Amino acid sequence: MKASSIDTVLEVRLRHEPGTLARVAAAIAEQHGLLCEIVTVRVGDEHTQREITVETDTTVQVDRIIEAIKQLPGAEVLSTRDRVMEAHRGGKIQVTSRLPLESVRDLRTIYTPGVAQVVRAIQADPASAWLTTWRGSSVGIFSDGSRVLGLGDVGPLASLPVMEGKAVLYDKFAGLSGVPLVLGVKSAREFIETVVHVSPGLAAIHLEDIRSPDCFEIEAELRERLHKPVFHDDQHGTATAVLAAVINAASASRLPLASARVGVIGLGAAGTAIASLVGRFGVGQVLASDPNPDAAARGAATGARVVELPALLAEAQIVIAATGRPGLIKPDAIRRGQIVFALSNPDPEIDPKVAVAAGAAFASDGRAINNALAFPGLMRAAIDVRARAVTPEMMIEAARTIAAHADAGELVPSPLDRELHDAVVAAVTRCALETGVANTASP
Amino acid sequence: MKASSIDTVLEVRLRHEPGTLARVAAAIAEQHGLLCEIVTVRVGDEHTQREITVETDTTVQVDRIIEAIKQLPGAEVLSTRDRVMEAHRGGKIQVTSRLPLESVRDLRTIYTPGVAQVVRAIQADPASAWLTTWRGSSVGIFSDGSRVLGLGDVGPLASLPVMEGKAVLYDKFAGLSGVPLVLGVKSAREFIETVVHVSPGLAAIHLEDIRSPDCFEIEAELRERLHKPVFHDDQHGTATAVLAAVINAASASRLPLASARVGVIGLGAAGTAIASLVGRFGVGQVLASDPNPDAAARGAATGARVVELPALLAEAQIVIAATGRPGLIKPDAIRRGQIVFALSNPDPEIDPKVAVAAGAAFASDGRAINNALAFPGLMRAAIDVRARAVTPEMMIEAARTIAAHADAGELVPSPLDRELHDAVVAAVTRCALETGVANTASP
Repeated sequence: MKASSIDTVLEVRLRHEPGTLARVAAAIAEQHGLLCEIVTVRVGDEHTQREITVETDTTVQVDRIIEAIKQLPGAEVLSTRDRVMEAHRGGKIQVTSRLPLESVRDLRTIYTPGVAQVVRAIQADPASAWLTTWRGSSVGIFSDGSRVLGLGDVGPLASLPVMEGKAVLYDKFAGLSGVPLVLGVKSAREFIETVVHVSPGLAAIHLEDIRSPDCFEIEAELRERLHKPVFHDDQHGTATAVLAAVINAASASRLPLASARVGVIGLGAAGTAIASLVGRFGVGQVLASDPNPDAAARGAATGARVVELPALLAEAQIVIAATGRPGLIKPDAIRRGQIVFALSNPDPEIDPKVAVAAGAAFASDGRAINNALAFPGLMRAAIDVRARAVTPEMMIEAARTIAAHADAGELVPSPLDRELHDAVVAAVTRCALETGVANTASP
Repeated sequence: MKASSIDTVLEVRLRHEPGTLARVAAAIAEQHGLLCEIVTVRVGDEHTQREITVETDTTVQVDRIIEAIKQLPGAEVLSTRDRVMEAHRGGKIQVTSRLPLESVRDLRTIYTPGVAQVVRAIQADPASAWLTTWRGSSVGIFSDGSRVLGLGDVGPLASLPVMEGKAVLYDKFAGLSGVPLVLGVKSAREFIETVVHVSPGLAAIHLEDIRSPDCFEIEAELRERLHKPVFHDDQHGTATAVLAAVINAASASRLPLASARVGVIGLGAAGTAIASLVGRFGVGQVLASDPNPDAAARGAATGARVVELPALLAEAQIVIAATGRPGLIKPDAIRRGQIVFALSNPDPEIDPKVAVAAGAAFASDGRAINNALAFPGLMRAAIDVRARAVTPEMMIEAARTIAAHADAGELVPSPLDRELHDAVVAAVTRCALETGVANTASP
């Protein structure tokens, strides 16, 4: 399945005649469409009605497939539906009551006069809000839509489906309430003030898809001012998932990480956080490269040795690229035995197959290394222990846990594995308690 | 049931002996506790275990009841639980996914790569966000906690349980996602800017429990800048519910409203909105009274004739008080045949029984006249038709519908009647379409 694919459901009516379905399948293949599911909807005397799901790269292919099927004898296209758009109808999330509301007594408990008692309890002891409101389970998911992965600056409203997706993952993987808040702001300053003003009722702050370098300023100031978990997923979620993959790739290649040279190409949000976390984890040396002087300075501040790209590619045993520049790494730059992660989406800096053909011991792109492995469990643990922050130690513990859950031969586990998230919560909770980040008196 | 009551569940073990339960009931009555429910939990050979729900005004009474029961032969208190606090444990609301997340295909639909298609569709046509995100169903519930009904300035965090209560009602009565956002802001200016910045992903803005006169400035500017429904419930929810009660009380008293004099005492958020809406509805004359010159000017701006309190009480056939000043109206000021609504919570300007004894044809306090009758259906309709605002015409239509749903002899219907909310949605939708407030092209 390709990263930019479109799922279309074709509702077709086919005459009972040997070969009709085969001809439809051939028409789909001819347009390079991928035939996914076939569901029989109705069997009549002369016709069968079926729903055929087809995956394509473009809508033009869909149009051509429909045209081709219409030309076939005994085949008819009744309707087409875009499966993804259809699934999104009505939005992906909702706010629901956890309590019944059937009787006058229920109303008096939830609303006036009962609620006054809960209000007074919080006035007397703000920490009680952890127990009696969603202050103990809500994660504000903030974005201005200024840098949506693979799509660029789409603005706040168009970024909302991404934030709702994160909220779905928070619900399903960690039992947290993700609250998407897309901001119409003109500066990092406005972004920061807005989050601070909205924060009193939120347990934690999740930052997403914010342009660099604004994202660094926003995160740094919010961490300082809020004393609650502030987590920029494009930085730390990515770095945690990548570290898990690095641990497993090094282990499979029998490369001792403690003495390995790891090179990070591109010092945007992801690259900077990867360089920083890999360094904290403790590898032999971190090299970093970025043509932008400010970005290079950021890399140096993480403790990495900043070098030119050719030097990095020549020296590093593990190469991690997060540049957004497809094809940046040429096959002849790959060294024999290198581990290569080319993370840019949808098109990587070097195709993993090309990298392996050029001598890499191991290569992967960004599709398998999913932030969803990390952020739900990390945030759940941070909130559960009322951590003031999500620390590198917590992220490293999450990365170790993720790495340990991968099946033999796999780089990382599937994010659909619920036990994985429970394990991340347990490990990160333990780490937070041991490292003194927990803060059970916080309001 | 009194407005400030505390519900306590006493878990007791009682010996099988005639009169044991009766003695417990007597002990509760002696402390002026109200015996609500008795549930038998376990029947043993010698004892029965029961959960007894008791309603009191204070926790001191609860302590005394427990002491008294302990003294009784054959009775034992095993535990006590505060029913309201217990119900609030974990908060009253959560964000949940509307879609399943079981397979890789689900993940690809909700998250990358599928979500990119939805993002691009919104970029191309912002109005599509109405269909594909919660932009079409989310109501931001904003408060700074500066004036929580009957409790005063409790601050943002302590006001959160009230906002969560509103979100429960939005879910249960209107199928909308209420998003409580309590603001740590220092001025009306900061409040306004924060709401504007957070608004792009929200269908509508619900303002709640904000001090006067800030609430007027905040609502007026947000209405002007946002072009989406902005609804201050303490003003318009209250005014709509009160108008419904006025319609029914006038009808029961055979007072023709078209020529009636209606007096509004107290021109804070509720009083000003009531004076304004009753005037728009069309009564003979609206009188208004407030010792504060700014408030009096606000009343005059609604078209009401501003008078001193004694003149208002002498002239008005319907008196509506929303002053927050218990006992303000003395019995000797009541005129024979007057209709009196003394709305201040928890203690009214005049006890309805006292008002009736003093000659009022009809009297009520604020407990029956519940905002929950109005805001869920009003907002649902406003969002459904993509209204730019909630207009007085829409509120009047809601008030008529609420009034019509009351049983004979009742002032207003129960907010638990789901058909009521459906009827409000239908009536307000029709009104919005007829008056040209609907705006189906809005992004």
